[in-house]
Amino acid sequence: MKAVPMAMPSPSYTVTLRVSVPAHPRATQHLVEAVADAGGLVTGIDTVESLEKHLIVSVTCDCVNTAHVQEVRGNIEMMVGTVVEEVSDATMQAHIDGKISVELKNPLRTRQDLARVYTPGVARVCKAIHKNTAEARRLTVKGNAVAVVTDGTAVLGLGDIGPEAALPVMEGKAALFKRFGDVDAWPVCLDTKDTEEIISIVKAIAPVYGGINLEDISAPRCFEIEERLREELDIPVFHDDQHGTAIVTLSALINALKLVGKRIEDARIVVSGVGAAGSAIIRLLMLHGATDVIGCGRNGALGPFREETNPHRNWLAQNTNPRGFQGSLKEALAGADVLIGVSSGNILTGDDIATMADDAIVFAMANPTPEVDPIAAGRHAAIVATGRSDFPNQINNVLVFPGLFRGMLDAGASKIDDEMLRQAAIAVADVVSDEERNANYIIPGVFDPRVVDKVADAVIRYVTGKEPRHKKKSKRDKASNAK
Amino acid sequence: MKAVPMAMPSPSYTVTLRVSVPAHPRATQHLVEAVADAGGLVTGIDTVESLEKHLIVSVTCDCVNTAHVQEVRGNIEMMVGTVVEEVSDATMQAHIDGKISVELKNPLRTRQDLARVYTPGVARVCKAIHKNTAEARRLTVKGNAVAVVTDGTAVLGLGDIGPEAALPVMEGKAALFKRFGDVDAWPVCLDTKDTEEIISIVKAIAPVYGGINLEDISAPRCFEIEERLREELDIPVFHDDQHGTAIVTLSALINALKLVGKRIEDARIVVSGVGAAGSAIIRLLMLHGATDVIGCGRNGALGPFREETNPHRNWLAQNTNPRGFQGSLKEALAGADVLIGVSSGNILTGDDIATMADDAIVFAMANPTPEVDPIAAGRHAAIVATGRSDFPNQINNVLVFPGLFRGMLDAGASKIDDEMLRQAAIAVADVVSDEERNANYIIPGVFDPRVVDKVADAVIRYVTGKEPRHKKKSKRDKASNAK
Repeated sequence: MKAVPMAMPSPSYTVTLRVSVPAHPRATQHLVEAVADAGGLVTGIDTVESLEKHLIVSVTCDCVNTAHVQEVRGNIEMMVGTVVEEVSDATMQAHIDGKISVELKNPLRTRQDLARVYTPGVARVCKAIHKNTAEARRLTVKGNAVAVVTDGTAVLGLGDIGPEAALPVMEGKAALFKRFGDVDAWPVCLDTKDTEEIISIVKAIAPVYGGINLEDISAPRCFEIEERLREELDIPVFHDDQHGTAIVTLSALINALKLVGKRIEDARIVVSGVGAAGSAIIRLLMLHGATDVIGCGRNGALGPFREETNPHRNWLAQNTNPRGFQGSLKEALAGADVLIGVSSGNILTGDDIATMADDAIVFAMANPTPEVDPIAAGRHAAIVATGRSDFPNQINNVLVFPGLFRGMLDAGASKIDDEMLRQAAIAVADVVSDEERNANYIIPGVFDPRVVDKVADAVIRYVTGKEPRHKKKSKRDKASNAK
Repeated sequence: MKAVPMAMPSPSYTVTLRVSVPAHPRATQHLVEAVADAGGLVTGIDTVESLEKHLIVSVTCDCVNTAHVQEVRGNIEMMVGTVVEEVSDATMQAHIDGKISVELKNPLRTRQDLARVYTPGVARVCKAIHKNTAEARRLTVKGNAVAVVTDGTAVLGLGDIGPEAALPVMEGKAALFKRFGDVDAWPVCLDTKDTEEIISIVKAIAPVYGGINLEDISAPRCFEIEERLREELDIPVFHDDQHGTAIVTLSALINALKLVGKRIEDARIVVSGVGAAGSAIIRLLMLHGATDVIGCGRNGALGPFREETNPHRNWLAQNTNPRGFQGSLKEALAGADVLIGVSSGNILTGDDIATMADDAIVFAMANPTPEVDPIAAGRHAAIVATGRSDFPNQINNVLVFPGLFRGMLDAGASKIDDEMLRQAAIAVADVVSDEERNANYIIPGVFDPRVVDKVADAVIRYVTGKEPRHKKKSKRDKASNAK
């Protein structure tokens, strides 16, 4: 089985090496060659200083990983008289002092300004909210604020790395919230893993927020935390790892099925992975009409023939797999119309995909390595999508959460329900017009400016039953354009 | 006893009235007169529309309070054929959608940017922090972030108004933190009054922050919450209502004593109010050398002659009042050099101040009404200060907390101690040069750009034992100038 080729230099690992080379007419050329020979992708070269016997050259290149940077460095230092004086990493540089800041919405220049935004003027605003708590949404940041809450237990593919180490991800999420949805999101990284404590803390901090986005909390605790908070809070609570993924998967599937001319009601769908994301995907697909869904875990297909101890998994077992199929993931694929993978990398081959029905749809979303090499899968499937940005059809949650929260905040929503998630999915799918839709374009790109408004409007329409008034439209446009 | 005149129109209550008046050559003049007759201070008048029979005029004026706005409106509508169509309130307007926002520090324009600040690049930053938690200060917002924590139980003079109604004050505080100290502060308004729960929540959210600012939490819970958090957290914890007030009071007293040529060691000091602020003031003055301090509560002077049930008050009783004075506040004033009031309005008269020693110093800081009319006090005292912006010598916490946290964040401080507070007080006092110092200028103004650097540098010097490197100086300047 050929591994998916992962070793590609990427802008997520750009380094700049400051190199001292002996003065020579082709010194920089040799330097570029040395980097290229080691597999580094040179994106810039500058001579910083030209001395009598030496040049100081700054060479910037994309690498694969830390070991690769060492290889590049080693190859450079093989050149006689050459020394790498410093290696700086663009990703680390981009994180110094953090990625977000708190800013004043209006300048504070005079005593008059001070008397309005702070004492004594502010007291009148406090009294207005004390009289009617709902006024907090109109007169404070609450109306536009979302908490990005984690306990650091399931961060990216890194696992339980703790609340401090999770902070760069939560800050990044807050940056995406602002950039794409003009939402003021703030990271809440909790130094506790206790389910009850997390629930009570989120309830206690809720007065400042118009919504809660749960993030990277490990299963099965994430299920209970989300369910309980939805019951006990009067602001919407969303677990992006579950529902964000489910929405964008349904969006992609709606367009993919249109392309191959199949109906979701008739499609045989196999989902690899029955954790937080897989279980949310299956529920949302069924709400949208899917009937023949088989969820596969490490021990093969779930089904009504076997009780599961985990209650979430047992719900799936008792409510999916109507044909009672028993067997492995590979066996389940035979004759299937759709494969959705949210499990782990390189567990299937092109030959497995070949056993699927004609015009098969494959979403191999394990990150960073898909369940099956997308190129091998493409030889047998009509449509292939992944979670990666370096293949077509990237299924990326950033298409959903900014618009979803934008809409909920603008509508003053107090809760989320499954139908809202489905409406958001339809809205993302609708961004791709009939003319645009093709096998390489079943889902809009993350920078597509149409997405956030479409999703927000669908949510506002669903919550209020009215056409959106676009009160924040100009702000949204501003956020998209300015940054 | 004449009440302090409080009924003055102020920019904290600016309203704009949209008025329809019959067309007449002197229509706007009559309108201005009507507002002035009702005691409103006209700051602007614009004719919005000029119709055949009517003018639409927008008149902006400062008022005293809600009843006064109604008087102004009534007086306008006494004019025949005149209708006030709308009243808008500049303070409320300044609060719509809140006062702070979360912004990206760098633009997020391309896939390359995305790959660096979010997945996959961010994973490397997470790993670096997982390996060494201290890196969070360098690579995330933690290095510049402060939580402004309240439970909404002692907000301004409004009392226990709850966490939502407290939010405008906490947001205002965050705005001041940014404006004056370039600190990223975020409001944390807790929906619980339980001491233990507040302590455990603040500990749990601490990974995101480089410091904690407690605010408007009622006594005596605020004492235990602060003490416990100082013991149990590895970031500095500061209760502004206590220590911010204490620092700026000591600053003002240092300069006032220089002016009258007295030493703190010899001064007879009476403090009216032995709650959170009064108790912190007494402790800090004693650390700076004060020996003869009498604290007065509602039942008169505390002293070693009587046990107090409240342990904080008992500490004061056993450690102050060395002459064993027994009696009321008024009696304690006889012969005193300094009166510091952090109690309630209008409890003393000019005659009481007349009983003090020559060259008396009076800080009447109760808000909004001082303990004694500052004008009456000024007839007998050498120096008078208040907490109000409309009298000279405003003793305002905003002179302290931005620079104090700026310094602690830049120094990577893990705790606060009393000596640090004293150093900060000396730094604020030092802003006023020997040439500048006079009875109307014992403390710098809140917009004085020298203050934040002086305080921050003093803190950095104290924490690190080294001269400050000014690594954030340019940012601080930017924040002060730009906003």
